[in-house]
Amino acid sequence: MHTIGYAAYSPDTPLAPYEFERRDLRANDVAMEILYCGVCHSDLHTARNDWGGSYYPIVPGHEIIGRVIAVGPEVTRHRVGDHVAVGCMVDSCMHCDQCQKGEEQLCREHSTFTYGGRDRITREYTQGGYSRHLVAREEFCLRVPQGLDLARAAPLLCAGITTYSPLKTWNVGPGSRVGVIGLGGLGHMAVKLAVGLGADVTVLSRTPDKQADALALGAHRLLVSGDADAMAAAADSFDLIIDTVPVRHDLTPYVPLLDIDGTLVIVGQVGPVDETSTIPLVMGRRRIAGSLIGGIRETQELLEFCAEKNILPDCEMIRMDQINEAFERMEKSDVRYRFVIDMATLAQP
Amino acid sequence: MHTIGYAAYSPDTPLAPYEFERRDLRANDVAMEILYCGVCHSDLHTARNDWGGSYYPIVPGHEIIGRVIAVGPEVTRHRVGDHVAVGCMVDSCMHCDQCQKGEEQLCREHSTFTYGGRDRITREYTQGGYSRHLVAREEFCLRVPQGLDLARAAPLLCAGITTYSPLKTWNVGPGSRVGVIGLGGLGHMAVKLAVGLGADVTVLSRTPDKQADALALGAHRLLVSGDADAMAAAADSFDLIIDTVPVRHDLTPYVPLLDIDGTLVIVGQVGPVDETSTIPLVMGRRRIAGSLIGGIRETQELLEFCAEKNILPDCEMIRMDQINEAFERMEKSDVRYRFVIDMATLAQP
Repeated sequence: MHTIGYAAYSPDTPLAPYEFERRDLRANDVAMEILYCGVCHSDLHTARNDWGGSYYPIVPGHEIIGRVIAVGPEVTRHRVGDHVAVGCMVDSCMHCDQCQKGEEQLCREHSTFTYGGRDRITREYTQGGYSRHLVAREEFCLRVPQGLDLARAAPLLCAGITTYSPLKTWNVGPGSRVGVIGLGGLGHMAVKLAVGLGADVTVLSRTPDKQADALALGAHRLLVSGDADAMAAAADSFDLIIDTVPVRHDLTPYVPLLDIDGTLVIVGQVGPVDETSTIPLVMGRRRIAGSLIGGIRETQELLEFCAEKNILPDCEMIRMDQINEAFERMEKSDVRYRFVIDMATLAQP
Repeated sequence: MHTIGYAAYSPDTPLAPYEFERRDLRANDVAMEILYCGVCHSDLHTARNDWGGSYYPIVPGHEIIGRVIAVGPEVTRHRVGDHVAVGCMVDSCMHCDQCQKGEEQLCREHSTFTYGGRDRITREYTQGGYSRHLVAREEFCLRVPQGLDLARAAPLLCAGITTYSPLKTWNVGPGSRVGVIGLGGLGHMAVKLAVGLGADVTVLSRTPDKQADALALGAHRLLVSGDADAMAAAADSFDLIIDTVPVRHDLTPYVPLLDIDGTLVIVGQVGPVDETSTIPLVMGRRRIAGSLIGGIRETQELLEFCAEKNILPDCEMIRMDQINEAFERMEKSDVRYRFVIDMATLAQP
């Protein structure tokens, strides 16, 4: 299938239009027209090859909402006309213990990323959602529940599941005391989802100026991490802290905020963190963990949960040709809280 | 009660004989003659004021086996002549959520340490087990099961419970894959206890020269952490790693050895660890945690478990007047694996 999109052609040039082929439908494939695609920080990292392993041209985008336009002969889950969603993965081995448990993101043979991966059969490079069409294995296409706002649903596929999965892994529910560090794409979803699960939610921010934003998102309070007295008073008061800070930072001020047996879970920074002290870990049996997106079943559960609770990201809609400007603004955290590309704005070549 | 012991008189002088008073028995107190006392690295740290807060003279020792010589009128758990044991704590608030759960070591009002603490009623400084006698609240005196070797049981009270508690917290049992970093007082107990619980146990050591020792302790193999190929081959292969290294170190080589959802639990170093990468945490939902001794109920369970399984520390018995030499040798890891003071060698003044 011939299609168009926007690709990075090198680590240091702006994204630009790109014509390319999607694979012919296999028996278990779904072809979709992409309606909306969220803009994730990972898109930018990959375009610039910050993590290594990028190929060029590369089409980013893994927060995808589409409409089915064709299905392979063995497809049973989706029909032409259905609204479907694709996140960070388009395939996995499907037989290892993790895939069998519904944790495809932790597949022993590594899941196939929506972009930045290689097709498991042909070894072709995968290309993401900044494009008109996508072809993906049906199991990795999620149902979009009736009534979920299609445009705003897109960021649920990465920012949403990345924060929902640790909330579920660490059993957040009514009465749980949840802290969220950082109020960007991930952080604002962590707040909304934790509130939706019934938790008592605190946003941690270096300065008080995000107070109004935090409360507007549903958080119960803002804790200013630069205020030593407030931090000391908040010691031992969280069951779970979701750390969405996407750069190197120091965990030392945050760990003592956890109650005994509490966990700080890192979902932002993928790389070094500063040296830290084991004292609050040892003295309170506290834990530091990481978490990676979520499995397909859990992502479907998230979509149903958001439809039922009417939880949606705060989005700024952009045209496809505004993507480079959006990348620049995202780097300055100048977005509340997620850009979503309206794919109808992708001009025909 | 007038008694004698060995105390540090300053951070930089050898321990020397010391005469002092133990408190008169309260209604719920047990007085014991101390038979054996293990020598823990914490004793040395406290004698030298490495962690701050030491007072002088201070009598170290928190791996105590004794025989009851008197009981207060309300004591119901112990009788004169019973063998009892005291570990790192001699009191706690007994009413907070942690004490109610049997996690007195995590008492919200802080447990009273056997030495280096203050009595909750009189505010007198506590003094430890390098002495002839001890007086302690009955709830913090453990029963020594019939048949447990009294001399060798002493190190169970700190080295034992410090490694047993995380094995239980993280549900180690038959089939669990446990790694142990460091083969000192704590590490050798971690090996024996994990083997006793039915786990598959690997000792991690920088060089291969501890292979025979590791196998003799019951470990199934030694993994040489300096061998990059062996370390790569061991990726994703542990459910729990107990890190007993008592100094600043780098966790980076060890975290990838954990399987998905696995935990590295720090029981040795209390202080800084080097900067590390979040990548293995995020990519495998791995965790880093700390753990602090264990509760009274769990310590009693440990003593019963060791009696039943005949699990005992490997000890080198010393006389009281050899304590300074023992400290020096302990600093050089020149002990297999724990010094125990035979208190019968404490000369009358």
